Amino acid sequence: MKTLLLIGMGPGHPEQITVQAINALNRASVLFLLDKGEAKDDLLNLRKAICERYIQQPGYRQVQVSDPVREDSAASYEAGVEHWHKQRAALFARLIDEELGMDECGAFLVWGDPGLYDSTLRILERVRALGGPTFAVEVIPGISSIQVLAAQHRIPLNRIGEPLRITTGRRLEKADLDNVVVMLDARCAFGQFADQDLEIYWGAYLGTEDELLVAGKLHEVGERIRRLREAARRRKGWIMDCYLLRRPLKS
Amino acid sequence: MKTLLLIGMGPGHPEQITVQAINALNRASVLFLLDKGEAKDDLLNLRKAICERYIQQPGYRQVQVSDPVREDSAASYEAGVEHWHKQRAALFARLIDEELGMDECGAFLVWGDPGLYDSTLRILERVRALGGPTFAVEVIPGISSIQVLAAQHRIPLNRIGEPLRITTGRRLEKADLDNVVVMLDARCAFGQFADQDLEIYWGAYLGTEDELLVAGKLHEVGERIRRLREAARRRKGWIMDCYLLRRPLKS
Repeated sequence: MKTLLLIGMGPGHPEQITVQAINALNRASVLFLLDKGEAKDDLLNLRKAICERYIQQPGYRQVQVSDPVREDSAASYEAGVEHWHKQRAALFARLIDEELGMDECGAFLVWGDPGLYDSTLRILERVRALGGPTFAVEVIPGISSIQVLAAQHRIPLNRIGEPLRITTGRRLEKADLDNVVVMLDARCAFGQFADQDLEIYWGAYLGTEDELLVAGKLHEVGERIRRLREAARRRKGWIMDCYLLRRPLKS
Repeated sequence: MKTLLLIGMGPGHPEQITVQAINALNRASVLFLLDKGEAKDDLLNLRKAICERYIQQPGYRQVQVSDPVREDSAASYEAGVEHWHKQRAALFARLIDEELGMDECGAFLVWGDPGLYDSTLRILERVRALGGPTFAVEVIPGISSIQVLAAQHRIPLNRIGEPLRITTGRRLEKADLDNVVVMLDARCAFGQFADQDLEIYWGAYLGTEDELLVAGKLHEVGERIRRLREAARRRKGWIMDCYLLRRPLKS
């Protein structure tokens, strides 16, 4: 049986990877590296550097392929995601079929944690549902960027007895604002709540040398975050960021 | 300046610890091990085994102290937590004061991730606010049990474009049920929703040799989880578990 390892690599810091993930990297004979286009060369190089640093087993093979890019022009967000996932499932099916021998073990390297806002597991389910190649899956958890966000700001994500919500910029709602982590927010959705009494803890390129951190009252630092974010995105060609919004406790 | 490292150790699997955490363990000259009483000897031993396995720097000191136990008899949950945190702050202040030399580096080993449902950071803030000893804090993120829950069940925690809520058994509400992770639930709060069409993914002692996993329709497996949980808790004297509840997607 072919085995696929989904390995959480952490958010980019070469030491924010677990011993379990390193052992998994060393079990795989094929490493699938999905290339998201020139703009994200940094990420691909970081991934290669992590492999070189930790893989001791000789003779593994790297298979680098271009990951389809989601088109923003689709009729709806859901339709765009659906089309994108279909393309990726076809690609993954081909990789498993052609690049992995019987009883071979392949690995997909996932930034952050395969369980949080990553679609690899979902794509593999789709490959299965399509009746493609049969394979076993093992998931190795990784440190998520939101954990690094909290660590770098030295704050707990949740407050005593309070729930924590994790959502996307697109789905951020006023009802969430007590304590919410926002991911995948290209449009600075926090801007619409600048009139509220909120604290924001923001971070970009978390765990890497380019890490940016800003914390403060949203109405005081919101504009600065927006400018920093835009300047960094232009300079590097890409940005990964997330933030925690929190209503101060009534005392 | 005294430095305190809050080191996330992962949920218990000796390999679910990051290289960064191992390096941090090796920086500390004093390791504070909080002993939660006989019932949790397992956890203390597991922690010692991790230290022995990964610490290469000789001559570090282990300081083992009894952690105050939260009393359930307090007038309210909040009052109970408040009293407990006050006791812990006094203990931590004494440890930092007496056990750590100037310019020495001490470490608190935290199960899971210091940012998720752990109170160490909060207690240290309180020590600061009390005007006790001055110290710097660094936080090293760790794999959380909910990430291992998702990995072992091979599921993503969030669904496409949907928010994820993380809460406690005490705070679980019907409005949360679309997709919610529940921690710290000694009373099987899922039981009150047995009449709903829900899926549950449950896990206990995640990452350890005693790991238990159950998944299925809540009305079919809820009772089994409750019995398994109670039997395991009696046998071992303690239990750590969490679960994901999810309403099936309408198709």
